[in-house]
Amino acid sequence: MQKLYKNYADEIAYYLNQDKSTKFQKSFSAKSLNESFIHSPKMPWLDKTKNEANFRSLNALDNITGIPSKYEEKLGSHPSFNHLKNTTDSEYHYIVSMFIDVKNSTGLFKKFSPDVVAGICRLIQNAAIHTCWHFDGYVHRLQGDGLMVYFGGRGISKQLAVENALLAGSFINYFVKNDLKDLFEEKGVNRIYTRIGIDFGDDDKTLWHDTGIGDCSEITTTSLHTSLSCKMQAQAESNGIVVGDNILLFRPNHQDYFRYKKYKINGEERDNIYEIPDEGFRYKQHDFNWERYLKNHPKIQEDINGGILLPQNYNQSNIYIQDNISQLERNATGYRPYFK
Amino acid sequence: MQKLYKNYADEIAYYLNQDKSTKFQKSFSAKSLNESFIHSPKMPWLDKTKNEANFRSLNALDNITGIPSKYEEKLGSHPSFNHLKNTTDSEYHYIVSMFIDVKNSTGLFKKFSPDVVAGICRLIQNAAIHTCWHFDGYVHRLQGDGLMVYFGGRGISKQLAVENALLAGSFINYFVKNDLKDLFEEKGVNRIYTRIGIDFGDDDKTLWHDTGIGDCSEITTTSLHTSLSCKMQAQAESNGIVVGDNILLFRPNHQDYFRYKKYKINGEERDNIYEIPDEGFRYKQHDFNWERYLKNHPKIQEDINGGILLPQNYNQSNIYIQDNISQLERNATGYRPYFK
Repeated sequence: MQKLYKNYADEIAYYLNQDKSTKFQKSFSAKSLNESFIHSPKMPWLDKTKNEANFRSLNALDNITGIPSKYEEKLGSHPSFNHLKNTTDSEYHYIVSMFIDVKNSTGLFKKFSPDVVAGICRLIQNAAIHTCWHFDGYVHRLQGDGLMVYFGGRGISKQLAVENALLAGSFINYFVKNDLKDLFEEKGVNRIYTRIGIDFGDDDKTLWHDTGIGDCSEITTTSLHTSLSCKMQAQAESNGIVVGDNILLFRPNHQDYFRYKKYKINGEERDNIYEIPDEGFRYKQHDFNWERYLKNHPKIQEDINGGILLPQNYNQSNIYIQDNISQLERNATGYRPYFK
Repeated sequence: MQKLYKNYADEIAYYLNQDKSTKFQKSFSAKSLNESFIHSPKMPWLDKTKNEANFRSLNALDNITGIPSKYEEKLGSHPSFNHLKNTTDSEYHYIVSMFIDVKNSTGLFKKFSPDVVAGICRLIQNAAIHTCWHFDGYVHRLQGDGLMVYFGGRGISKQLAVENALLAGSFINYFVKNDLKDLFEEKGVNRIYTRIGIDFGDDDKTLWHDTGIGDCSEITTTSLHTSLSCKMQAQAESNGIVVGDNILLFRPNHQDYFRYKKYKINGEERDNIYEIPDEGFRYKQHDFNWERYLKNHPKIQEDINGGILLPQNYNQSNIYIQDNISQLERNATGYRPYFK
């Protein structure tokens, strides 16, 4: 069995061993060395070679999508709409919006110095970026340790965009819920979890345009459904995904993946997340059972422990994946940290 | 008296007249014209000339700061730290972080089409960007209709950075609370308001580094106080500003501007917004009385209606400001929309 996110989890395990007391001992024994470390620590997760290795370690995801994954992209410049940059033009075009938030990360400052917090948060963020890229997502914005991602664009079917968004969100949650849970528990760190919101805004409802001023700008959407996907993210349970009514339109035979969820605001519950009574418009949100979705996916199998098995394509294998295959450990104590 | 934000308020008034029923009538009388309008509306707030005119209309702010204002900047690339881009290097350096959120804007979709919503939100955002630029702020990230701004950097005193952040936040709130309130009420739109959080992270607590991958990246900070300023923004009242303990260090003689505020989370109140009991670290948040701060500012006077009067510098005047001076109206009905 292949542990898909092993590279990321190993590095996070490495950082979790660098608590403030470790640093204090270092400082006591080798002050000058420690001082330079404090004032300009290296950020190894930004190393290009290692980033690419991590990215390639997710290649098994390509066997699910059947599409080649991309690598490298620019924030705030969706390729289908970047011709609008620094113009007063705009265009209506559908998009799937996804907001991913990492919760509890501020708690890390209790145990770790800023460079270690940065390391942990960025690896989770990088795992999410890489996963989205494997599912043809476009990373629009980094928001602290969260991110905002679009799926779809010119020449991409709406059906495919929705499916890719659901799969990307499912794998990100799978990583955080399964691979990271034990690591954090072992260190007595308040568990970090994700919350994800996804919604679809159709061609007549989603306006693309530049926003901001000059280079202090980005290509963005103004759409009720972009705004709602952000609100739905805040409604999700720990490691949960909440989606809007529009998403259900694309999976009419599989409504058992979705459970209607009331909208909670200021301590009260409402039937709809959004209403325009004059127009008879009432919009609902739903919990998405991403674990069932992954396990029922025709290209994914379940292993004997209830984990997921991805199809192997040995043509795509490389040294990093081969290395992963030899590591069968499931829990944190078995991790062999990347740097050791 | 000079109505500082008149240009912005006039344009928002113009957009508020473009409700869905207006569009429906247009569509009925001139279908083909309307269709092209629907599919590629012009975004006039992005016009460079008009943007610069709006920016210059705030020149009176320079008489308060005494510093020349900048114009144009690139997101996610703070000039003091941009040499870290695409490297694994990092640096510790103090910064003041400010999060500005615009609340209730999603409600605009009930009455307006996406291009009108975009127009209203972007004008508020532009007014905020321009104000921050006049106070030497660096706009780091656009977040929907909100923004994240840094104050300070290499060669800028901490005292000045804190004062500029407090002033910028105060003026943005002044604009939204005074100039926009009547406009929205007149149209029966749920009032839009701002919430602002500000905190200071010192040299040994704030790490600057690249984050993300390749061009999908930005220069950012990892600091407890960057994270807390975002949390404090969510604690603010309508058109309120909440600041952290660290901000008070820079105004020891004026603590009457700050009122201790308990931290509200999940329906309960806590004494501190953050605690590290092992280290005896307890951090509090405070409501900032920005209205009193503006009125007591040595360079700002109060007019007979309780509004604020800015010092005039006729050398800096230009046609837009002169035009503003002739407009003495205080309420929405008196606005002369920019486009008419």
